Amino acid sequence: MYRVAVDAMGGDFAPQAVVKGALRALKNFPKLAIYLVGREEEIRAYLPRRKPKRLEIVPASQVVAMDDSPIDALRSKPDSSIRRAFELAKSGEAQAVVSAGNSGAVLATALFLLGRLSGVSRPAIATVLPTIKKNAVLIDSGANVDCKPQHLVQFATMGAVFCEQILGLPSPRVGLLSIGEEGGKGNTLVKRTHKLLSESSLNYVGNIEGRDIYKGEVDVIVCDGFVGNICLKLSEGLAEALMAMMAQEVYQKRLAQMGFLLARGALKRFKKRIDWRERGGAPLLGIDGVVIISHGRSDETAIQNAIGTAGEFIEQQLVEKLRQALANENLKARSVTS
Amino acid sequence: MYRVAVDAMGGDFAPQAVVKGALRALKNFPKLAIYLVGREEEIRAYLPRRKPKRLEIVPASQVVAMDDSPIDALRSKPDSSIRRAFELAKSGEAQAVVSAGNSGAVLATALFLLGRLSGVSRPAIATVLPTIKKNAVLIDSGANVDCKPQHLVQFATMGAVFCEQILGLPSPRVGLLSIGEEGGKGNTLVKRTHKLLSESSLNYVGNIEGRDIYKGEVDVIVCDGFVGNICLKLSEGLAEALMAMMAQEVYQKRLAQMGFLLARGALKRFKKRIDWRERGGAPLLGIDGVVIISHGRSDETAIQNAIGTAGEFIEQQLVEKLRQALANENLKARSVTS
Repeated sequence: MYRVAVDAMGGDFAPQAVVKGALRALKNFPKLAIYLVGREEEIRAYLPRRKPKRLEIVPASQVVAMDDSPIDALRSKPDSSIRRAFELAKSGEAQAVVSAGNSGAVLATALFLLGRLSGVSRPAIATVLPTIKKNAVLIDSGANVDCKPQHLVQFATMGAVFCEQILGLPSPRVGLLSIGEEGGKGNTLVKRTHKLLSESSLNYVGNIEGRDIYKGEVDVIVCDGFVGNICLKLSEGLAEALMAMMAQEVYQKRLAQMGFLLARGALKRFKKRIDWRERGGAPLLGIDGVVIISHGRSDETAIQNAIGTAGEFIEQQLVEKLRQALANENLKARSVTS
Repeated sequence: MYRVAVDAMGGDFAPQAVVKGALRALKNFPKLAIYLVGREEEIRAYLPRRKPKRLEIVPASQVVAMDDSPIDALRSKPDSSIRRAFELAKSGEAQAVVSAGNSGAVLATALFLLGRLSGVSRPAIATVLPTIKKNAVLIDSGANVDCKPQHLVQFATMGAVFCEQILGLPSPRVGLLSIGEEGGKGNTLVKRTHKLLSESSLNYVGNIEGRDIYKGEVDVIVCDGFVGNICLKLSEGLAEALMAMMAQEVYQKRLAQMGFLLARGALKRFKKRIDWRERGGAPLLGIDGVVIISHGRSDETAIQNAIGTAGEFIEQQLVEKLRQALANENLKARSVTS
């Protein structure tokens, strides 16, 4: 049995989508138990008269708004659903937290209550991307906008462990996102990171360019969260724009609709695949606990998938494996410098 | 009559593609005269026996390699085709330079020989992108990897002048590329730039996200050259990856080929439209002269288009208009602070 604390008040369609997604997850995962955290009355409105056995409501009177500053939320909302959910994880009552709420507040609360794994200065969001070949992990996808070289090396290490342990790719190839393949190319951050990654024990293949992201020749794509977030959203927006451009062509040229529908289907599926929110959520790696960040627009299915993902990570002991890998990496780094 | 200095030795297919592209440009643009700069014998090999009247060969014995460092190229190759081409622009014999050679060396030589416009610290590459609505300008697309807020404001000003004077869009809307629409979101560079742009006289609409680039709701997209280059190359690579993914679907599902061909055609055209190399080249704005950077893989058509673009900018007095706009912007900035 594993227990997941779910922020019932987080997201645009909370609590309805969250409660219904949680009920569906309970049906699908027999070893799962859920704490639904939030305003009891509002949660109950969407529960069947007879509450499922493996579900418990944990009351929290406050709700963090999407535009609350993370620090303000921590300070002025001690009884928020996000805060209470993380307290359950801190006490060991829950082994994972899932929230579709204010992601800055989720990150700040996770740091404050659960803390970081040893060797991690900055937790990072890992997004699984589709490529022409297999999936790749883009890390950081948006948690850290200003980074130092050693942060990017930690992202690389966490991304590689995630690839190996969760996606099952042995010795994952790590690429550093830059503007030229030669090690000398890039901005100051990337040039310095390149040097550190070259000296690391990772399977580092060097710089990759923007056009290589979807080629599938590397398994882990490392960048700061500013660049990572722009890449993800650009990909989403471009898929949409291409659909619109193709629609314009179809109507201009009066060509068969079927071709357009086929292309549109492929683009829509691609958009779903890159949208980690639709995939159920992305893990926040580097926190001493399993944390899944879901998108604000999460529907029932997204919440159900996010809870399922959390369960998978608990069972695969993601945090323990990250902790060990980071300790080994630190040991190696120390033996190199000593 | 306007005169363009063309680096005959620059690019993967030089001098053949450059010489042939120049000949085609002469046929298409009756007011154009061309200086072909490079090794005379090699250039002559691709010219008709009777040299066209409006074409002149200017000898240069050295060639800058694609992997030469820009500074080394300047120092150790005083008789390079890039250097000689810019000397023609400096003396006033030519009014523009077109090169498909080492773009770092082109930038360094342009700075050294022609210098910057007053008010510009860093020249930037402006790329015209297709969107769902009309075209937009992405600036900087790769000239400057580490930037300060005032550089981004200058890029914004140059991009707006380019939009207004060359693309004919009155009062262009300027957006700052970031990871959230609120002014408080982004990295340190973007937050500081947001403040400066809000105080400028530009038609600044605020932050835009990656997903907005192809929506066509802003005319000028401002970012540093590291982010800009990654965005461009990601767009190119994603169009390719989507083609491959659709091809996989077609064969898997045994659906009609026509639909696939239609979609592939649209994606190919999109790829051509975002690839500034195929469009003939992108202007380097902020240099006291017209400079067009073409891609290393430029073929005859690309070179012909680049020369045509250079001619257009000369006739439209792009540099004069930029100079005036920058002076006005500086005047306003000074009156605000005084």
